[in-house]
Amino acid sequence: MAAEAETKALPIRDAEGALLSAFVERVTTAIESGEKDLVLRAVGDLHESDSGDLIEALDPDLRPRLVELMGSAFDFTALTQVDDAIREEILDELEPETVAAGVAELDSDDAVYLLEDLTRDEQTEILDKLPAPERVALERSLLYPEESAGRRMQTEFISVAPFWTVGQTIDHMRETDDLPERFYEIYVVDPAHKLIGTVSLDRLLRTKRPISISELVDKNHRSVHATDDQEEVARFFERYDLIAAPVVDDDGRLVGVMTVDDVVDVIEDEADEDLKALGGVRSAEELSDSVLYTARSRFPWLFANMLTAFLSAFVISRFEGSLEKMVALAVLMPIVASMGGNAGTQTMTVAVRALATQELGRSNAWRIIRREVSVGALNGLAFALIMGSCAAFVFSNPGLFVVMALAVITVLTAAGLGGILIPLGLEKLGVDPAVSSGPFVTTITDVVGFFSFLGIATLYFHLG
Amino acid sequence: MAAEAETKALPIRDAEGALLSAFVERVTTAIESGEKDLVLRAVGDLHESDSGDLIEALDPDLRPRLVELMGSAFDFTALTQVDDAIREEILDELEPETVAAGVAELDSDDAVYLLEDLTRDEQTEILDKLPAPERVALERSLLYPEESAGRRMQTEFISVAPFWTVGQTIDHMRETDDLPERFYEIYVVDPAHKLIGTVSLDRLLRTKRPISISELVDKNHRSVHATDDQEEVARFFERYDLIAAPVVDDDGRLVGVMTVDDVVDVIEDEADEDLKALGGVRSAEELSDSVLYTARSRFPWLFANMLTAFLSAFVISRFEGSLEKMVALAVLMPIVASMGGNAGTQTMTVAVRALATQELGRSNAWRIIRREVSVGALNGLAFALIMGSCAAFVFSNPGLFVVMALAVITVLTAAGLGGILIPLGLEKLGVDPAVSSGPFVTTITDVVGFFSFLGIATLYFHLG
Repeated sequence: MAAEAETKALPIRDAEGALLSAFVERVTTAIESGEKDLVLRAVGDLHESDSGDLIEALDPDLRPRLVELMGSAFDFTALTQVDDAIREEILDELEPETVAAGVAELDSDDAVYLLEDLTRDEQTEILDKLPAPERVALERSLLYPEESAGRRMQTEFISVAPFWTVGQTIDHMRETDDLPERFYEIYVVDPAHKLIGTVSLDRLLRTKRPISISELVDKNHRSVHATDDQEEVARFFERYDLIAAPVVDDDGRLVGVMTVDDVVDVIEDEADEDLKALGGVRSAEELSDSVLYTARSRFPWLFANMLTAFLSAFVISRFEGSLEKMVALAVLMPIVASMGGNAGTQTMTVAVRALATQELGRSNAWRIIRREVSVGALNGLAFALIMGSCAAFVFSNPGLFVVMALAVITVLTAAGLGGILIPLGLEKLGVDPAVSSGPFVTTITDVVGFFSFLGIATLYFHLG
Repeated sequence: MAAEAETKALPIRDAEGALLSAFVERVTTAIESGEKDLVLRAVGDLHESDSGDLIEALDPDLRPRLVELMGSAFDFTALTQVDDAIREEILDELEPETVAAGVAELDSDDAVYLLEDLTRDEQTEILDKLPAPERVALERSLLYPEESAGRRMQTEFISVAPFWTVGQTIDHMRETDDLPERFYEIYVVDPAHKLIGTVSLDRLLRTKRPISISELVDKNHRSVHATDDQEEVARFFERYDLIAAPVVDDDGRLVGVMTVDDVVDVIEDEADEDLKALGGVRSAEELSDSVLYTARSRFPWLFANMLTAFLSAFVISRFEGSLEKMVALAVLMPIVASMGGNAGTQTMTVAVRALATQELGRSNAWRIIRREVSVGALNGLAFALIMGSCAAFVFSNPGLFVVMALAVITVLTAAGLGGILIPLGLEKLGVDPAVSSGPFVTTITDVVGFFSFLGIATLYFHLG
């Protein structure tokens, strides 16, 4: 895709966007030689995302050495693009002076991103080495709650008074050196620095110089609060197709700007979290984690599942007598439970996702509950016919049709009900439904599945 | 959050961002009165996302009536914000003239979004009523493959020649009426309309009027091809934190612009698809779908699962003799299979997600395969001890420790191996691993689970 840098001699990515191993090897050799010039030539003029991927592809020992060898040529923004574990490893290895010098060059949002995972002591050690204005701005951002707009915002922005003209504003921008790297709108504030409104750059460009800013200002601006959660902010950006939004404090004073690139990362992260949570994996799990760490982090979910499986086993054990008299039941019972588990997962997936995107709420909850139960009952009916016929045919026992059919209808209806009620209930209790719904839904479908099948069989065939 | 429109009298959303039912009722009453003025007053000056949500909240019969009553005051962009099924219903109800008039007002990307789901005849009927330049642009966009950059791009953009000055460019923008609604960069093209590079608006604003555009142009621009898949484009935007990117055809001619707001929707949609696919739900399933439609669309996944469950049942039936002699095995076997299923899902979730985000590729596949198998074996060992002890204790049979422990290690290791190899294999075959991995992984863990547990028990206790 990319009609990339025409000035660059060698390609660094293949057609699918993966980093070329030839490029990684070239850099590895250069680092091992220990010569700064060789490294700089091998690395070239990389975008931060490319150097982030390069760092991840390097041998762990070589990563801090790359940063040290590159010196001031290394853009610390690259470290915001690598896995958390890798970033912490590198920052641990580097001298605090090196880190401070790198952080000083960063936009404030990137600097906060690097600092926030460090311990209080490590943060202080680095912050103390920064110039006062930057230190104060970073300290203030770090005071906001984790994952809030205050942590993700940039504190570099352009604000002007409403009585300025377009010409004055443009001249101001031409003469100021300390501008944000990229920006899309400017902000109009009153003398107390309270936000009045925004002016987009295209609006500014299209207006003649003598016009006053107060005539251009969009007072219908959409702003966020510094304490708003990043996920709320992301939904807000998405809903109104925003590129940037001013961030205000409790008094309505402009304290920063959130931009869409941060929001894209948040959306990606939140989708990632929900998906992993539903699959029983911690959201922080990364491909670079070690075997031991990964095994330990996945243990609790498996342990919870083991407890629900023990519960199912207990239900089954109540029917040992029936199973001894009719071993066909042992063969068929896992099918019933498995169908229930899958139907429950379907409903739960839809519910968890709709809750996350705020499509499911109080206004339509009842309609969706009714729909899910009806869908479960309807597919229950369909599979009752199919699976009942198969069971009766294979074991040449017509009674198995009745038992299987009734059990399948019961479990698929219960799956629909449990699959929607459990996420809704957990959300109401303030528990993340993506993380916790799975084991509960499985428990319901397994217990209902085994109990209904074995119970109905015991009654029907008088096995009790 | 939103310091929303200060001019608006009544709030339309609650604190969590959900539409207020009082607002929906007010609009409903106004539509039922059939008076245009009442409707316009009730609806007010809504953002397209708000009117999209309003339309979804209305009774289906009232939706087309709202559009008709509002007349030219209705912004068709709102229809890009509602579920597909609802959009198609509304477009079906409206007169082609009404739709054509609405489409004519849209940005080209929104117009294509509305038109692409209609039949060829319906498209032609509407396109024929549009002015020639717009019709041609839309027809050209519709020729690009579905879900390509060509479908998602805006064909409105500003292009200038490299020999223009900053002053000329700004004057041109001030004098042209037909500019895109919002834009963030302008494009520099040669006489054949081939893309030379981009100039960001902030760069333009910061530069003095007599400077030539050729001095500002960023030739390192990152462009996409009109035939590129939207998911590739989204990864590209995400990797390089882009706000907009020029879209070029096979000859390098500038044909449109992709903007980040479309990319945010793509990222959200793709995450949605992966999540739903893993949960066994079609990506197109929406909350507004009917019971019958939903039940039918979920049937195939349940059917596939039934086949794998039959396979497990077949494996169990091979051990009927063992089960008759020792009914404890029937009680314990579902636990083993269930642990395997859950461990397999964990690995599969990580693999599917990493493949989607291109974090998993040829360069690290072997390392991840080794890691997943090791994680499976390690947790297998841990659960072997726990579950073996429990089984031996509950049934007062020390031999069950050995049988359970060996089976658990086997199935968790197999789950790690299957959970990673199946998504990798499907990806290699060009099949979407998110959609198809589940049933295969479950088959492996179920079959290995039942076979290893019952097989080892048969050998150990001489039940054969």
